[in-house]
Amino acid sequence: MKAEIIAVGTELLLGQIVNTNAQFLAQGCADLGVTVHFQTVVGDNEARLIEALGLASGRADLVICTGGLGPTQDDLTKDALSAYLNRQLILHQPSMDKIETFFRDRGIHMVESNRRQALMPEGSDPLPNDAGMAVGTALTQDGTHYVLLPGPPKEMKPMFERYAAAWISTKLDGVHPLHSRMLKFAGIGESSLEHELLDLIKEQSDPTIAPYAKEGEVAVRITTRAASKEQADAKLDPLEAEIRSRLGAYIYASRDISLEQAIVRIMQERGLKLSAAESCTGGLLSDMITAVPGSSAVYQGGIVCYTNEWKHRLLGVPMDVLEGTDAPGAVSEKAARLLAEGLLQRSDSDFAVSITGVAGPGTSEGKPVGLVYVGIARKGCATEVAQLALSGTRDIIKLRAARSALYRLWKLLSN
Amino acid sequence: MKAEIIAVGTELLLGQIVNTNAQFLAQGCADLGVTVHFQTVVGDNEARLIEALGLASGRADLVICTGGLGPTQDDLTKDALSAYLNRQLILHQPSMDKIETFFRDRGIHMVESNRRQALMPEGSDPLPNDAGMAVGTALTQDGTHYVLLPGPPKEMKPMFERYAAAWISTKLDGVHPLHSRMLKFAGIGESSLEHELLDLIKEQSDPTIAPYAKEGEVAVRITTRAASKEQADAKLDPLEAEIRSRLGAYIYASRDISLEQAIVRIMQERGLKLSAAESCTGGLLSDMITAVPGSSAVYQGGIVCYTNEWKHRLLGVPMDVLEGTDAPGAVSEKAARLLAEGLLQRSDSDFAVSITGVAGPGTSEGKPVGLVYVGIARKGCATEVAQLALSGTRDIIKLRAARSALYRLWKLLSN
Repeated sequence: MKAEIIAVGTELLLGQIVNTNAQFLAQGCADLGVTVHFQTVVGDNEARLIEALGLASGRADLVICTGGLGPTQDDLTKDALSAYLNRQLILHQPSMDKIETFFRDRGIHMVESNRRQALMPEGSDPLPNDAGMAVGTALTQDGTHYVLLPGPPKEMKPMFERYAAAWISTKLDGVHPLHSRMLKFAGIGESSLEHELLDLIKEQSDPTIAPYAKEGEVAVRITTRAASKEQADAKLDPLEAEIRSRLGAYIYASRDISLEQAIVRIMQERGLKLSAAESCTGGLLSDMITAVPGSSAVYQGGIVCYTNEWKHRLLGVPMDVLEGTDAPGAVSEKAARLLAEGLLQRSDSDFAVSITGVAGPGTSEGKPVGLVYVGIARKGCATEVAQLALSGTRDIIKLRAARSALYRLWKLLSN
Repeated sequence: MKAEIIAVGTELLLGQIVNTNAQFLAQGCADLGVTVHFQTVVGDNEARLIEALGLASGRADLVICTGGLGPTQDDLTKDALSAYLNRQLILHQPSMDKIETFFRDRGIHMVESNRRQALMPEGSDPLPNDAGMAVGTALTQDGTHYVLLPGPPKEMKPMFERYAAAWISTKLDGVHPLHSRMLKFAGIGESSLEHELLDLIKEQSDPTIAPYAKEGEVAVRITTRAASKEQADAKLDPLEAEIRSRLGAYIYASRDISLEQAIVRIMQERGLKLSAAESCTGGLLSDMITAVPGSSAVYQGGIVCYTNEWKHRLLGVPMDVLEGTDAPGAVSEKAARLLAEGLLQRSDSDFAVSITGVAGPGTSEGKPVGLVYVGIARKGCATEVAQLALSGTRDIIKLRAARSALYRLWKLLSN
């Protein structure tokens, strides 16, 4: 099956946002065994949108559109598809009920245009929107399949993964489904990982092996087509075993979960409690951990000790460590150690993590941007402190520092 | 002038990389006063690339391609354009000299395929590559302009900024550049905003007016073409004034900054200090504020009081408020008030923000997912507490709760 992905939105044509939806859907199509031949971006203009739909229908079996399902006059995707296919737009009552309930529950007046979000072309299958109002749509006409998804990634992704992918699968005939495993790595860089697996990557045929890297995260996906999970496992197991024999020490999961999810699960199983004292990361580590459902069983709390006063008063770091001509300063091995130990002492946690450093853009205490110390204090064990030299913008340094702290925590937990 | 941007590369169709080049070039075109009508992605396939070039030539005056200028057999963009325009590929000797010098200086044997990077369609203008080997190309045929740029952003961006943009400018006749302002809103939803501005949006011609929404943020961009900033201001000022007369209470900036940036700037100017006590947002609010460079002058620190024990011990909320059959509980107006006041008392901040609620996916204290209380305590003023009913996934509820707290804080600061 050949597919074309159409992203709708003048903000894309003006360069105000990046079309990350296209990448997500391209990967999703690849997973389904659907080949994407073209991606298109078109503005919020009905005539040009109809032109793009016509072109895509002529060269693809599956046309996936993102964007333009919202309540405003600019949101034209359903109108354009209905016009192109000569269908009526009808109201999807369950979606309308959901919208009305939303406004009624909040005591907010519902602007009439919100009704538009519950419309869909006559005779199409609704795709539920678990994270928003606008209902998605899937339908087949003249042998071409059409799937309309919302533009905001937080709505689009769950709609694709939970509903659209399954709908598309029913249209695939005689192609064995893809089975894949995502091996997730921590503490190793993309190029080192690729170097270790280069022969496997070069000789790959079935299963395929593909390294993935995004900001601070590395993963390897191994994939095969098979009629059943058992047949797939018979092909995937030996390859995973080979990869583990080379790099097992860096693999924290064989499915697509985050490092913080892996940590929360381990700590939950062992009944361990965690706290964090964050200076330069400013709450990011706590935010990442508390993003995991169930983290409240593990995470006790954190202190964002941004000023030296807070480091001293809340965590007991002596002021003469933090300030003064000969003091090590807030960004130091000693401060990281005392922050972690001070937190462990003051909380009933089993592990206390500290992060202190220079996120930039300016230097601090005469120390360079990117210098970060991560401390981990544990009940009954010596405190460990690591010194990091990170590069990047303020945001990236915060993220890398938090990820590094998570990696070090995971290493201690998995030993 | 109408433009189409074509990105060439199978890795884009497979979703292995994001098409950030399209965003960069779209912004570059907008700055030049060139309107992008379509963006296309096509794989490393000569026939489909020629098809895409033909389509673009038919509907655009300027066709910009990125990618496919490298040395490998997959790099086909110059071949495809030459075949499409019926021109020969010729060697650009200065580029060839540069490539040969590069290899000779490093004592590396030059693989013959590197010659491909010095080829260009006969009669075209070379675009120098200051960061790599592959020469770019610009040419005009039958009234359509073609610009070929390399795929790697670190080569593409300088080539566009230093050479291609200037070349395109020479083809523009009497078109003034775009001038725009971004009005940023808080505390109002997309549909309500559009409702208030519907007549302006419907009647727009010059300046244009476009609403933007992404997760929890709403903005309006007003844009005009003008020879000078003064002439642009003369057109933009009255429209901005009209929008402000209707919705001024929700506008926190007239340029593209975040709400937290606006807050940090206001507090910095007035010498005010801020702290936060976060339960359900788990450090997200602190993370957002500390993402702003210079926030250390304003932000004292925060307490992620995830457990009741932490709420009690660190912030002095009595246990009989938090737990017990008749207690209001941790998710209550009273707990939010006491958290904010407890923090204000224990810190030397002027403002203390508290957030407590149910982020989900499960309920808590028998209270529904999305119920959130935001408290703001101030020196010498009564504490304000707002009750929110938020929807979405755990991540979205955390984000909306943090954004709502920022909005309420900004309102207090701007009154």
